Amino acid sequence: MAVKLAENNYGKSRVRLVHVTRRDDRHDLKDLTVGIQLEGDFETAHTAGDNRKVLPTDTMKNTVYVMARKHPPKEIEDFAQRLVAHFLERNPQVSQARVEIQESLWERVPKEGRPHPSAFLATAEKRTTEVTGTRSRVSIQSGLRDLVLLKTSGSGFEEFLRDEYTTLKDTGDRILSTAVRARWLYGPGAVAFGECWLGVRRTLVETFADHPSRSVQHTLYAMGEAVLKLFPVITEIGISMPNRHCLPVDLSPFQLENRNDIFVPVDEPHGLIEAVLKRT
Amino acid sequence: MAVKLAENNYGKSRVRLVHVTRRDDRHDLKDLTVGIQLEGDFETAHTAGDNRKVLPTDTMKNTVYVMARKHPPKEIEDFAQRLVAHFLERNPQVSQARVEIQESLWERVPKEGRPHPSAFLATAEKRTTEVTGTRSRVSIQSGLRDLVLLKTSGSGFEEFLRDEYTTLKDTGDRILSTAVRARWLYGPGAVAFGECWLGVRRTLVETFADHPSRSVQHTLYAMGEAVLKLFPVITEIGISMPNRHCLPVDLSPFQLENRNDIFVPVDEPHGLIEAVLKRT
Amino acid sequence: MAVKLAENNYGKSRVRLVHVTRRDDRHDLKDLTVGIQLEGDFETAHTAGDNRKVLPTDTMKNTVYVMARKHPPKEIEDFAQRLVAHFLERNPQVSQARVEIQESLWERVPKEGRPHPSAFLATAEKRTTEVTGTRSRVSIQSGLRDLVLLKTSGSGFEEFLRDEYTTLKDTGDRILSTAVRARWLYGPGAVAFGECWLGVRRTLVETFADHPSRSVQHTLYAMGEAVLKLFPVITEIGISMPNRHCLPVDLSPFQLENRNDIFVPVDEPHGLIEAVLKRT
Amino acid sequence: MAVKLAENNYGKSRVRLVHVTRRDDRHDLKDLTVGIQLEGDFETAHTAGDNRKVLPTDTMKNTVYVMARKHPPKEIEDFAQRLVAHFLERNPQVSQARVEIQESLWERVPKEGRPHPSAFLATAEKRTTEVTGTRSRVSIQSGLRDLVLLKTSGSGFEEFLRDEYTTLKDTGDRILSTAVRARWLYGPGAVAFGECWLGVRRTLVETFADHPSRSVQHTLYAMGEAVLKLFPVITEIGISMPNRHCLPVDLSPFQLENRNDIFVPVDEPHGLIEAVLKRT
Repeated sequence: MAVKLAENNYGKSRVRLVHVTRRDDRHDLKDLTVGIQLEGDFETAHTAGDNRKVLPTDTMKNTVYVMARKHPPKEIEDFAQRLVAHFLERNPQVSQARVEIQESLWERVPKEGRPHPSAFLATAEKRTTEVTGTRSRVSIQSGLRDLVLLKTSGSGFEEFLRDEYTTLKDTGDRILSTAVRARWLYGPGAVAFGECWLGVRRTLVETFADHPSRSVQHTLYAMGEAVLKLFPVITEIGISMPNRHCLPVDLSPFQLENRNDIFVPVDEPHGLIEAVLKRT
Repeated sequence: MAVKLAENNYGKSRVRLVHVTRRDDRHDLKDLTVGIQLEGDFETAHTAGDNRKVLPTDTMKNTVYVMARKHPPKEIEDFAQRLVAHFLERNPQVSQARVEIQESLWERVPKEGRPHPSAFLATAEKRTTEVTGTRSRVSIQSGLRDLVLLKTSGSGFEEFLRDEYTTLKDTGDRILSTAVRARWLYGPGAVAFGECWLGVRRTLVETFADHPSRSVQHTLYAMGEAVLKLFPVITEIGISMPNRHCLPVDLSPFQLENRNDIFVPVDEPHGLIEAVLKRT
Repeated sequence: MAVKLAENNYGKSRVRLVHVTRRDDRHDLKDLTVGIQLEGDFETAHTAGDNRKVLPTDTMKNTVYVMARKHPPKEIEDFAQRLVAHFLERNPQVSQARVEIQESLWERVPKEGRPHPSAFLATAEKRTTEVTGTRSRVSIQSGLRDLVLLKTSGSGFEEFLRDEYTTLKDTGDRILSTAVRARWLYGPGAVAFGECWLGVRRTLVETFADHPSRSVQHTLYAMGEAVLKLFPVITEIGISMPNRHCLPVDLSPFQLENRNDIFVPVDEPHGLIEAVLKRT
Repeated sequence: MAVKLAENNYGKSRVRLVHVTRRDDRHDLKDLTVGIQLEGDFETAHTAGDNRKVLPTDTMKNTVYVMARKHPPKEIEDFAQRLVAHFLERNPQVSQARVEIQESLWERVPKEGRPHPSAFLATAEKRTTEVTGTRSRVSIQSGLRDLVLLKTSGSGFEEFLRDEYTTLKDTGDRILSTAVRARWLYGPGAVAFGECWLGVRRTLVETFADHPSRSVQHTLYAMGEAVLKLFPVITEIGISMPNRHCLPVDLSPFQLENRNDIFVPVDEPHGLIEAVLKRT
């Protein structure tokens, strides 16, 4: 019997970087978590313990900090591209480099109605990018996660398929609650990444809020379609939305009526709806 | 040898409740997690398996939903007081009831610059209360948690005590990063709980932002002192602040200088500073 | 502009099931977490809110419990196959069904040196399977996760590639610590799934323990190779191993020598090594 | 108005330490997470930003590693006592030092039926201690956590108190599932800490397994009583046990009977039962 190495990759995960830009009138803050994975000609490292082509993952970590010093990170997509290019240029044994960056988003503390120049408040939301590069092409997939949304009107789920194990009842008025994870692919050409990200996020939030939802699928599709319509630089968007059920509490044992106002949110089990929309 | 039951309490934890108030022009949302713990004459339940004085924790859960139906929760302090009173009134075997509520805070989705009437966005912050009642007194301790703050100026740590194991260097300009957990005790008399909570939160945030910090202790004290000065209804405040270190990265191996702009945040180990301030 | 639905799937995640088999001399316990995802002709659900082909995820959850009643789960691979077949048979609109099961493993409490008939102790390890079926084929990928291993001898990392950002030093004697995630594909034909799983786990553990490791890649490959050699029913195995670094503490500031005995384990950053091995 | 500092403490949390003892025939492994909190005369640090009495928490971290070098940790109770004594002796401004240690427990990998000399497998269980010292006394409270137990027979809950919100039905045969957190106080005199810990753990596990349980309270008390009876060096034990409900699934909508074999475990809400037992 013979065995072969069919796929392999290695790298460094969760490299933490906080970068401060000190301007005269304010400080800017970037809070990034970087992951790097390399693929390539690493057969003998696996089969013979030969490390001569293996750049240590510790060096990858150092490189993140050196790069931040030489080219302060503004947009995570640019910083990720620079890292991808660096590892490909210096390492002929590497055929593909992938850099993932998650940016933890902070807001400025309000001070007398104006943003504070140097004090920040964490939000729960994350901006993400994944840049994958080979010797012949680069792809940039950006996104967001932990965008937790809930609406108390404009959502139903009715006239669905039933079988003998179906006990769910039609409802024309339910709570819809989810945590949006979205990733979109940029087409070729220059992109104003930061501005575009803000626009996509706003589009996702507003569409969720106002869409007359017949199902999670229905609203997810509307959200993706709105993004593709408004942002020509985006060629494809994938959205993943758990259905975080808020179940009406049965108050009938207590001779009380639930007037669609008392719910128990349950974390498990939960629905999970995923789709990828493309421009045709 | 004889053994005695020195302390005991039992109850239900993590009762989840989402409550919607449907008004003509908008919906209001409350997202609560309730915990109930009872103490009292439960000796024979422990020693003899006699359950005749044991109200099931399942009943406590039901009571939360029934109470929400009869008295829709507005301020968590009021809802908790009502639950405490309920369990004391109906259960002579109970000597003390404690109800803890954690409110997950949601913001309205912005829509053309105005708050959306029925769509919400989760924040990371929590409002908390713990109401403890006996037959003779009730105490109300409210608070907040997961308030994550960071400042890039106005923080140093210098001229501290040194011993032979000290390697830390003085710094007059460091990042200060923390997650505030605060709890305060209300004195007797009526309190506008919601308004007061917002005021305390703003005071904590603004003091953190503007205080010329010589240490976490120094800033924590200033934050507590500011609250006690501004809110006479509060008699005592306890604050717990981890020091989430952001360490400057050593770039000297690469012949580069860190101009106080490149940091690695570390989750462990972390400092932990706690104090309770009282009005004298 | 036109938009098309390029991919879609939906289903129920984290369906929890505890199943007890009551025999005369002992009880058997299964603790499963089931996830179901369906793909197929759900275009109109997305584009028009037409739910007539959408089997509710709530029904999927019910089906898990009904199936457990009709066919008590013994091996998770068999239970998953049954669920996949069920959803394909009943739902012509479904082109692919995927069922993932994670089994939380319990040990019997020891009682006077013998296993207790009805009391159990949780372990941290999980057995997993993912069965994917279409109208023409079924694939079974089983695995394990949260297998946390550490060795204090027989591990080094030397003579690796260096560039100008490399500061790591060669070491011939380091701690190797990881959490193994492995997934393997079964070939066609009958498999004794439970017995095979135990054998693979033992092979992974023993190879890790005894392999003279020159790198994580080197040991990971040896582990996968040993499995493919010993288990002909397995055609392919993928292994993912973080390198949970245990760094020697620098005691030189205190005029002390670290004799390779005092380490600080760090969770982030960490190396991440992944490979897939196939039979040729 | 005047404000006073009523309580204060500060220190370092989550100092991670892995210690290896290299013997001829085997290696021993200790995996500890240490927390240190000091109380004392730190008024001016809070009120005036005067750090001259503040030993940096970074120094506390260094001290853990230096101490591990000078006095290799065997029993966590001894290592914690040493740290407490160190901080009290060197720091007159400190009135109380508290050191908490959590030991992550590893098992040796089995190799041909015998324990491997240098390869280890993590368990989920933790051994804990909290040593608190002042100038006049030291208290040692040791314990365990994450001991997850479940029994499928010998547990009921019947003839409990009912009110108008009670819907729970009597059951003479239910699953009992919990995660034990126990802490016990040692009396004065020498203690074989490691041996005693193993004995207490075994006593807790065996009593849980064999006790004919009428409630969680009933079993918790039996567990604590058994420990106090068998271990005269222990003067007091506190036990906290969540009731991790496994609810029988209602199969009646599908014309099926649940023969007490199909359950859904729910994480929230959960019961929580706590008691402290003392020797009289």
